[in-house]
Amino acid sequence: MNLKNVLHILGLFLFFLGLTMVPAMVISFYTEGGDLQSLAASFFITSGAGFLLALLFEKSEERISLTRREGFLIATLGWVFAAAFGGLPFLIHGAAPTFTDSFFETMSGFTTTGASVISGLDHLPRGLLFWRAFTQWLGGMGIIVLAIAVLPVLGVGGMQLYKAELPSPVKDKITPRVVDTAKLLWGVYVLISLVQFFLLMFGGMSAFDAACHTFATMATGGFGNYDASISHFQSIYIEGVIIFFMAVAGMNFALHYRLLTGDVKSFLKDSELHFYLIVILVATAIITVDIHLSLFYSLEKALRASLFQVVSIMTTTGFVTDNFDKWPLPSRIILLLLMFIGGCAGSTGGAIKCLRILLIIKHSYLEFYRLIHPHAVVVVKLGRHIVPADIMASIRSFFFLYISTAVAATLCLAFLGLDLISAFSAVATTLGNVGPGLGMVNPLSNFFEVPQAGKWILSFCMLLGRLEIFTVLVLLIPDFWKK
Amino acid sequence: MNLKNVLHILGLFLFFLGLTMVPAMVISFYTEGGDLQSLAASFFITSGAGFLLALLFEKSEERISLTRREGFLIATLGWVFAAAFGGLPFLIHGAAPTFTDSFFETMSGFTTTGASVISGLDHLPRGLLFWRAFTQWLGGMGIIVLAIAVLPVLGVGGMQLYKAELPSPVKDKITPRVVDTAKLLWGVYVLISLVQFFLLMFGGMSAFDAACHTFATMATGGFGNYDASISHFQSIYIEGVIIFFMAVAGMNFALHYRLLTGDVKSFLKDSELHFYLIVILVATAIITVDIHLSLFYSLEKALRASLFQVVSIMTTTGFVTDNFDKWPLPSRIILLLLMFIGGCAGSTGGAIKCLRILLIIKHSYLEFYRLIHPHAVVVVKLGRHIVPADIMASIRSFFFLYISTAVAATLCLAFLGLDLISAFSAVATTLGNVGPGLGMVNPLSNFFEVPQAGKWILSFCMLLGRLEIFTVLVLLIPDFWKK
Repeated sequence: MNLKNVLHILGLFLFFLGLTMVPAMVISFYTEGGDLQSLAASFFITSGAGFLLALLFEKSEERISLTRREGFLIATLGWVFAAAFGGLPFLIHGAAPTFTDSFFETMSGFTTTGASVISGLDHLPRGLLFWRAFTQWLGGMGIIVLAIAVLPVLGVGGMQLYKAELPSPVKDKITPRVVDTAKLLWGVYVLISLVQFFLLMFGGMSAFDAACHTFATMATGGFGNYDASISHFQSIYIEGVIIFFMAVAGMNFALHYRLLTGDVKSFLKDSELHFYLIVILVATAIITVDIHLSLFYSLEKALRASLFQVVSIMTTTGFVTDNFDKWPLPSRIILLLLMFIGGCAGSTGGAIKCLRILLIIKHSYLEFYRLIHPHAVVVVKLGRHIVPADIMASIRSFFFLYISTAVAATLCLAFLGLDLISAFSAVATTLGNVGPGLGMVNPLSNFFEVPQAGKWILSFCMLLGRLEIFTVLVLLIPDFWKK
Repeated sequence: MNLKNVLHILGLFLFFLGLTMVPAMVISFYTEGGDLQSLAASFFITSGAGFLLALLFEKSEERISLTRREGFLIATLGWVFAAAFGGLPFLIHGAAPTFTDSFFETMSGFTTTGASVISGLDHLPRGLLFWRAFTQWLGGMGIIVLAIAVLPVLGVGGMQLYKAELPSPVKDKITPRVVDTAKLLWGVYVLISLVQFFLLMFGGMSAFDAACHTFATMATGGFGNYDASISHFQSIYIEGVIIFFMAVAGMNFALHYRLLTGDVKSFLKDSELHFYLIVILVATAIITVDIHLSLFYSLEKALRASLFQVVSIMTTTGFVTDNFDKWPLPSRIILLLLMFIGGCAGSTGGAIKCLRILLIIKHSYLEFYRLIHPHAVVVVKLGRHIVPADIMASIRSFFFLYISTAVAATLCLAFLGLDLISAFSAVATTLGNVGPGLGMVNPLSNFFEVPQAGKWILSFCMLLGRLEIFTVLVLLIPDFWKK
């Protein structure tokens, strides 16, 4: 591993991260919220530190591509650096009182989680609000490329399946070819974002609110500009638009690309997409009936609240229109379950993801088949392709690690004094990059009251979830650091 | 499939099941508790029904062995029939007020779970108490043979691994050879039971209590003769003996057989056994500290309570000496986790089992190794043997099904109005064949207050857990019933 190279790239990354604060500074300048200083200082510190780092560790001439290990290290450190430096505006301004808080808030932003420690959003200066939403949109851009172009090459958690899906980079190395794929997908991401932005404006949102909420929707992030989240707007039109675009953001962006290039067939035939839509429909139906009967919501109100929350949680966005912590237990269990399932692979959504769950279900069914026909040769298929056994093994390892991580983190939070529902849902919602949880971290509350150590544990969960667990934990294997 | 054959065998099975009620009748006769009538009536009904069934469906001459499908059906129906008929004494006597209750109680007995709907045990007639404990011991005999001789041949959930462990039956068919293996293992089971019986007598227990508690220990069942379970005796000696024999019953009986035949090496080198003991030690240590600090137990009292409960839950026995529902949350989470891990494969313990967890952990670690060395060929090893990929796949399917079943059953109980902790722990404890849970089903309470539908769901969980899920669910696959 060439650490110099890694630090050089991280330096460049920080330099550009600083530059991304400029739009927020411009908004701060015009809205005069008193947050210009904190943004400007953060910009100088971030870009300055990046510049120095890139200068100090010059790239070695003979290498143009990265090795696998360098890839893991850059992905993990990239997100950690982004959270540490990107949180400076909140820390310097005071909106986040400690470094722990600013780190948590910004890790939540860049991992597109949406869990927050800042309350009083309605009175927060606009520059900071914009930056907060913008971290999510930038995080979303990172995810798309990571999920479709980088992790498949690194072979993380069965994501190799996507190798075949798009013009793909060369085996085993992350080469400049990744940039081509990235550009295509980013084009799609920007295009859909623009459409949502105008539709929200059309519904009466200010340009500022429309931009911020578009950022948070397309990234399946969930940061809003108001403590009341989307219920602030009290508009069925706005809820509808956001439901639609959350659902879009939870789908595979490679499919969107294909759809935009006229390939409707792949889109309609995608079995992961079918699974995703069926889960949304079934969960919505059950919860609608449950809250209609238990909370005496009218059927229309129940359906509206249920659909919004189901799509929001399943896509791991985390916007809310109703405090689902007050919903009956079965509905809450279903929402917890959706936090584990998550969006489609190749989307900006997090958690285990539909593709993995679907393949594990298929494989388990085949196990029954094999019991009845012990000599039959059985293979798992996805569309017309056979899923190789080693990829299935990766996917199952991922499932086991995901559950184990959730249990271990819940236990840690229990030691810190949280009750079971708060601890478990806080872990489920951060590991799945969703946002709000139940109990102490319910939609009307936030994560401020979680003890400091708990905030670090949950920040780590967000990072683990976002980088498909393996990418981060592989750094802890001694073998990783051997020559 | 030859249904006639299946029914004939089930008839014989019922006939013998009726005969196993005779010892309880003898005890009832001498203790004059007023339960002789109910036992005698049950005996006649059970053996009579069995006799008729065996007579009605005569065995076809040309077949001497069973097919796989017949094996699945007999195992599942065997347990269901045992619960239905074996519960008659409680139903007729009135100790269990409804068929649901008697079915639940007896399913809990024969699956060696130990969850009870009967309270006032201290005043229950001795014949019934004996029969209740005896169902567990008989269930334990069934499990040992099932786990070591039958399920491996059927290829359920990776249990094929045990094929190599003992003089093994012929491929693909359950042949009379199974009987040889069964006899060896039953010999070991009876022998260890006798030792425990005398050690308990030596500690001052009556012969009756010693017999019943031995039955419930060796089967990792957990039915006691007193509402206060083992804390009734207030004896450190008796607790020590029971801890030791619970731990023994949670180990692989094939290993015990080898140990008794002088093969100490296999015993000491068994990696599953190491894993089992390490988990017990670590869990005991953490819980000791947790309850010492939180509940102000003296260190000695904390260690004693912690060790007893950890061994009892981990081995899926379910005896209690302390109401762990009052323990701090981290300790309760660890106990819940142990309910999922369970004993060793080939023991009378239930749940996922150490062997599977150990292999899944090993495989997941290898996944990291493969990320660093993508071209390395990696295999999971158990001792010196390579675990075939298809067996690993079975094991991982089992893990997924187990978790899915737990979630689905919890959701069902939530719909019936149980709170989350009660619902989840009730499912964990029945699916894992443990016994007591948390909340509503805590050790000082029992399952009587669970709604009727809930009792059926939990009875089904006990059956699923005991028969390694696949054995039961395979009957629901349409393909199973095709020619």
